[in-house]
Amino acid sequence: MATAVLTISSKNYSSWSLRGWLLCKMAGLEFHEEVMSADDPSTRAELLLLSPSFLVPCLVHEGIKVWDTLAIAEYLAELSPEAGLLPTDAAARAHCRAVSGEMHSGFHNLRSALPMNLKAQHEGYSVWSGARGDIERVCAIWRECLDTYGGPYLFGGAPTMADAMYAPVCTRFLTYDVKLDSDCAGYCRTISDWPAMIEWTEAARLEPDELEELDVEF
Amino acid sequence: MATAVLTISSKNYSSWSLRGWLLCKMAGLEFHEEVMSADDPSTRAELLLLSPSFLVPCLVHEGIKVWDTLAIAEYLAELSPEAGLLPTDAAARAHCRAVSGEMHSGFHNLRSALPMNLKAQHEGYSVWSGARGDIERVCAIWRECLDTYGGPYLFGGAPTMADAMYAPVCTRFLTYDVKLDSDCAGYCRTISDWPAMIEWTEAARLEPDELEELDVEF
Repeated sequence: MATAVLTISSKNYSSWSLRGWLLCKMAGLEFHEEVMSADDPSTRAELLLLSPSFLVPCLVHEGIKVWDTLAIAEYLAELSPEAGLLPTDAAARAHCRAVSGEMHSGFHNLRSALPMNLKAQHEGYSVWSGARGDIERVCAIWRECLDTYGGPYLFGGAPTMADAMYAPVCTRFLTYDVKLDSDCAGYCRTISDWPAMIEWTEAARLEPDELEELDVEF
Repeated sequence: MATAVLTISSKNYSSWSLRGWLLCKMAGLEFHEEVMSADDPSTRAELLLLSPSFLVPCLVHEGIKVWDTLAIAEYLAELSPEAGLLPTDAAARAHCRAVSGEMHSGFHNLRSALPMNLKAQHEGYSVWSGARGDIERVCAIWRECLDTYGGPYLFGGAPTMADAMYAPVCTRFLTYDVKLDSDCAGYCRTISDWPAMIEWTEAARLEPDELEELDVEF
């Protein structure tokens, strides 16, 4: 059987690459990573949000090509139902998809004001007021999930697709020193300690800095 | 059994409300519409993209609350698998979710340059150059689907969730007189002639004009 291939871009900067990669890890998929060079014009256009995002993440598995992070999540949830990418309870499953969808389509102010940058650490960073509403909504989502399902992940004792969607936000809150209540700070620690996150973050730290001039969210 | 309730906002302006409503119709769901007033501050904030979008569309069905359009689509696909919101073939299903996801998370230039406005008709409208790339990508998606699955809908002879996602784009192309090749123009006619679209559009034309001062995409 052919091995799956996941195309990603920068491990330090590409939050969507991180989400797709976490989903593949959660599903227990054996896959090769193909890392697109930031020097490639089409990669740069996508990283700079100048073109629609269908280059990364992109999964090819048994002749099926899937792009878009939520489509990859649903594909993997069908492929490996036992991996728990979606909760088994119908109401929790709907909730999980709803908050995953909010992250997928929204929070533009948060994403542009606090771009993912795993190598950086900005103590006392002054967050643009336009991003405050997004941060409050993210924290409200997390608190409701942690209260309802008991943590430490959003939908209980093991990660779901929602945790993959919000993992890059946790890194941003840590990078930009965003003040959080104890529940949300605890959730960020859970994500930081997730073995798959540790593996990704260590690889990101070793990445050459070819994208540092790009001061945008991607 | 309690009837489902779908919360929407303006039928003339709210593209996400249209998508959620089409999905419910496709699933054969019996539902009441609850229309949020544009005078309500939280509705206005959401319509003006000042707050995250979790108010509309929102479906409550048998005690389960689902917001976010893709989450509603997946919920309904599970509830009514026979309705065909997703293709039965795994590769086509992945493709359907990928292009639905692209619409869900992207095309911001298109959405801000050409806001949905079903009552308007702008002959010879000059489209902002920043939106051209989005229009080209949408047309490339449509052509690939129509070529692969034979039309007249994106994934063959009956509408799927992808058609609900792109239906508001068809109305924009017609409203703003966007020049299309014959395949894409034909697809827009298919969507215009879809009985559910006719029903929605007729209701939109009867709507009072309380939102006309809002010159934004919502």
